[in-house]
This record gives sequence, structure tokens and C-alpha cells, in this order.
Amino acid sequence: MKHEICVVNDFLTAAHREKVCAAAERHGYTVRFFETPEAAEGQLGQCEILYSHYPDLLRQAPELKWYCCSFAGVEPYMQPGIFPNEECLLTNSSGAYGVTIAEHMVMVTLMLMRRIMEYQASMARREWIQELPIRSILGSRITVLGTGDIGSNYARRVKAMGAAKVVGVNRSGGSGEPAYDAVYPSARLEEVLPQTEVLAMAMPSTAQTAGILSRERIALLPQNALVLNVGRGSAIDQEALIEALNAGRIAGAALDVMTPEPLPADHPLWSARNVLLTPHISGDMTLGWTCDKNVDLFCEDIENYCTGRPLIHAVDRTLGY
Amino acid sequence: MKHEICVVNDFLTAAHREKVCAAAERHGYTVRFFETPEAAEGQLGQCEILYSHYPDLLRQAPELKWYCCSFAGVEPYMQPGIFPNEECLLTNSSGAYGVTIAEHMVMVTLMLMRRIMEYQASMARREWIQELPIRSILGSRITVLGTGDIGSNYARRVKAMGAAKVVGVNRSGGSGEPAYDAVYPSARLEEVLPQTEVLAMAMPSTAQTAGILSRERIALLPQNALVLNVGRGSAIDQEALIEALNAGRIAGAALDVMTPEPLPADHPLWSARNVLLTPHISGDMTLGWTCDKNVDLFCEDIENYCTGRPLIHAVDRTLGY
Repeated sequence: MKHEICVVNDFLTAAHREKVCAAAERHGYTVRFFETPEAAEGQLGQCEILYSHYPDLLRQAPELKWYCCSFAGVEPYMQPGIFPNEECLLTNSSGAYGVTIAEHMVMVTLMLMRRIMEYQASMARREWIQELPIRSILGSRITVLGTGDIGSNYARRVKAMGAAKVVGVNRSGGSGEPAYDAVYPSARLEEVLPQTEVLAMAMPSTAQTAGILSRERIALLPQNALVLNVGRGSAIDQEALIEALNAGRIAGAALDVMTPEPLPADHPLWSARNVLLTPHISGDMTLGWTCDKNVDLFCEDIENYCTGRPLIHAVDRTLGY
Repeated sequence: MKHEICVVNDFLTAAHREKVCAAAERHGYTVRFFETPEAAEGQLGQCEILYSHYPDLLRQAPELKWYCCSFAGVEPYMQPGIFPNEECLLTNSSGAYGVTIAEHMVMVTLMLMRRIMEYQASMARREWIQELPIRSILGSRITVLGTGDIGSNYARRVKAMGAAKVVGVNRSGGSGEPAYDAVYPSARLEEVLPQTEVLAMAMPSTAQTAGILSRERIALLPQNALVLNVGRGSAIDQEALIEALNAGRIAGAALDVMTPEPLPADHPLWSARNVLLTPHISGDMTLGWTCDKNVDLFCEDIENYCTGRPLIHAVDRTLGY
């Protein structure tokens, strides 16, 4: 066994590489860096640990014992048979994206509440129109669907801005995060929706989250409801959402994820009423902090792996996160 | 003396009127409400207290003892001879606008940092472009010029979102607000500007603030600097700002106030590089909380006025705020 770590990620700076090398060498591992999956082609035969986000590389690494995904969402890795052996460990980089995605979510919450798209349109015509009725995070009731790193970073920010009630909803109904005024299990989602002014969705793609915001549940939202989604597009019945937006049954939506991506040019979502679309960039790897944290999380688990401790960013492959 | 309060404001709900009446009647005052200055024409002869935002009404109220301005900015009232008598008290509604304007400022900070205008442009073309380098409030150095209600509400929000250093700058160099890591007097502004990533301006229009962000001071800002202004357009050398933006010497600006307002259709500010213009709506009276607070502040000072205590929202007419 050669004790080899391979890194196939394009966002690492020289400082990041040094950090990975230092963590590896402490335990007698060597590290090989590849900028692209093409460069790694045929090079992973001895690889024991792989840090990457290209699922296709897995079948080239027969000796793999641990795959660290540099993304938070790991749904491509849930397909049966994708790992070279069933014992191979999987970790993700949940924890690196909470800050940047939460800042995105605060931004789009305010953009929708403050009618900024309408103001931008009138200003683009060089017209000076004022007095569109606006709303505030202060005093709002906000429901966070998915209370992981991303949802909880958002919850802390809106709570600090004076949201009246921040309710978390997750599988178990529990959370250690004090920013939530209450946390409900997803079985009680229907109770929360009628009192929800902002529904902020930040869930992984799993069998349980697919279609969780169904047509029936969209119908439970009040007319002033805003829907945000930064998790996966599959969580929403997108056709029903478009209908609710266009009929004015809900007030607006900000979607960083949708189905499919990229969205085809003729898709009806583009022209839905009061929808703010962004091209899956809320967790953008161009933010230095995100990259630093991503590498830190990996190095932390190198230490755990090499000293026989459990990997703290381990994904439960039966749950999908 | 008839002990008469006149209210010339169009934003009051029935509940607001009841609240004002209750506060007035407790001390033997009657209240007359007018939706518009036209409706009040010729009706203010006996008015002792006027709650409004129309400076022209002042010369119709010879008996006036206290004018409560429902706006925060009171520069129109600084002209000599505008009051019917020099003893007339002046209060403003500073305190009602901090929340809504701070939410606006957080929104535009993030819109500029996250390149949202560029993303909106590519999405409008139905193009799926990713990977524009973005920045984060977390870890940023933010300078707040003007540490009143508005500036401090913004400071608290960006500090809660993890800004690395929040420096306040004001006339005296002091502030009781704990969100500031440091507060400097405006004489030391030049020292702060080179380390400023976001310069957030929230100052009243006074002789001291006019032109405070001069051409020379703009030149001290680093190339990644973002400039926000929600105070008054007169605080900035606007021509120099446009030049700095267009030359790429600073990164962007979000201006809710400018000179003149409304901005003429052929003004070069419309097409300056990476400028986000809004039509002086950050302190929009359509936000319920702002209106509630505005009325609360007035009622609080009715109590003070009638019991002979100092008015807590009094404007120092020599300073202009």
C-alpha cells in the first residue's frame, strides 16, 4: 500500500496545497494534485484517499478507502455500484458553504421583500417611481426547511435582523441551534406553512426531500409568502410553483436551483411572475472563505482518518447526507 | 390658546390616529388631521403643534410652538426665517428609519459583493454563466460614516454577519453603540479610507457633511471599495465618484440619494460602471414598522412636551440634526 492521497480540484491555491501536504506528511502519506479529471486519467490506481467532486473518477480508483467530496450535495454518489468497494468511506464538505449561501439567501430575501426587481426595471427606463409597498425581515415569520449548516447560518442572520419567529423543519424535529424559536419534524410541515412569510429551503437531494414542497403544500402558503430554494430543484413541484406565482397565490420566489440546470431557454420558469433566478451560484467556490474552509474540513478529517477516529464529515449513505 | 395639534401626513392609519388622539387628549389637546398640505391650507391659524413634512406649511402657522418633522432629514428647515418664530421647537423622526434603511444597505452591500447585477443581466439573456468572483460580508472591513440610528442599525447587522472590522466615523469620535470596533472623529477619515472595503454613508445634510467624500478622499479608497450612500447626495463629489467608477479605481456604488433628484434622464450617473441606483426609497414610508415607529416617536414627545420635559427627538438647529 502506497499511502497515496489524490486531489482533483481546481480551486486550491498554493497555500491550500501546502496545508494538505503538511496534514498528509504528518502521517506518511504522499499527495498528488490534478487540476482536472482529464489530468487524473489513469493516475488513480494506487489512490487510497481522493478529494474531488467528479463521481466518474471513482471507477478509476480500485484501492480507494475514502472519498472526500468537495461539494456539500452528494446525490451523485448514492447510485448503487458507483464506489469501487462498498466499504469505501464518503465525506462531504458541508460546513464550507453555509456562510456564502446564507449571505445569498439574506440578499434575495431582501430583494424580494423590497421589490428591488421592480425598482431596477423602472430605473432602467430612467423613471423615478417610488412608493411600492415593501416589507421587512424585522418582524417576519420565517420557516427554514433543512436545518443543516446552510439553513442554520441563514437562521442566525435573519434572527439577528429581528425576524419575529424562525422555525426550523427537519427530519427529526431537533436542532442544537439557538437561532430557531422552534424546530418541527417534517411530518408537521403542513402546520407551519400557513404562518410562513418566507419559506427558505436548504435541503440535500434525498428520497425524503424530493418533491417535499408539493402542489398541496404550496397551496397552504399564504398569499404574501416568498419561497427561496438553495438546496436542490427536485425538492419543489416546479410546475405547481410556477402556477402559484403566475396566479398571484404566492408573492415571489428566489431560486438558485431548479429543474433542469441549465434551464432551457424556452422554459416557463424564466418568465414566471416575480421570480428571481440565479444560475446555481449561491455556494460559489470563488469566495476565498469557502475554499479555505473546504480545505480545512478535509485536513481535519485526514487527521481523524489517520488516527483511527471517526470522520466528522461522514455522509450516511442510507440517508444521503 | 386653543391647544391644537395639526397632523398633515398621509401615512397614518386609523390606529395611528387613535394613538395620537389618546396622547393629545390626555393633556387637553385637540387633534385635526389633514391628508395633504392643500387640505390644511388656511386651517393652521391656531395650530400650536404641527406633525408634518411640508416646510411650506410653517408660514401658515403663526402660533406654532413645536414642529415635528415626520422625516429624519431636516435640511429644509435650516433656512433662516422659515419658522414663524425663532423659539419654535423642531424635532425629527430619526429612529423610525434605521431598520428599513439598514435592511436596504445590507441588501445592496450583498448585491454588489455577489455581482448580482451581472448575474441578472446574463439570466435576462437566458444564459447560464457562473463563476464571477464574489465577496462576503464575513471578514470584510466596513466603515460607517454617520453613526446615528441608520448607521448603527447597519453596523449591528454587518457585525452579526461576521464583518471583520466595523469602524464608525462621526463628528465627535464617540458612540455608545457596541457594534463598532472603533469610532473615529471625521478629522481622521483619511486614515480609515485606505483600509475600507465598504464605505457606508448615512449622514444628514449639514454644512459639515456637504462634500465630505471629496475627490481627494475618493482617491484614498482601495480598488475593491464599494460606496453606499443613503444620507444625502450632497455628501459626495458625484462627478469624482463617477470618474472613479468608470476608471475602475473603485469597485462599485449603491446610491439611494444623488444630485439632483429625480436624476435627469441624460445624467452620466445612470450609466456609470457598476452603480446600483434606487430612487430615494430606502426609508420608504410603506413599511408598516416605520410608520408605527414614526407615530410612537411623536406621541412620546407629546408626553414630554405637555409635562415640560425636554423633547428627546429635538434637532439642534445650529448643527442641523
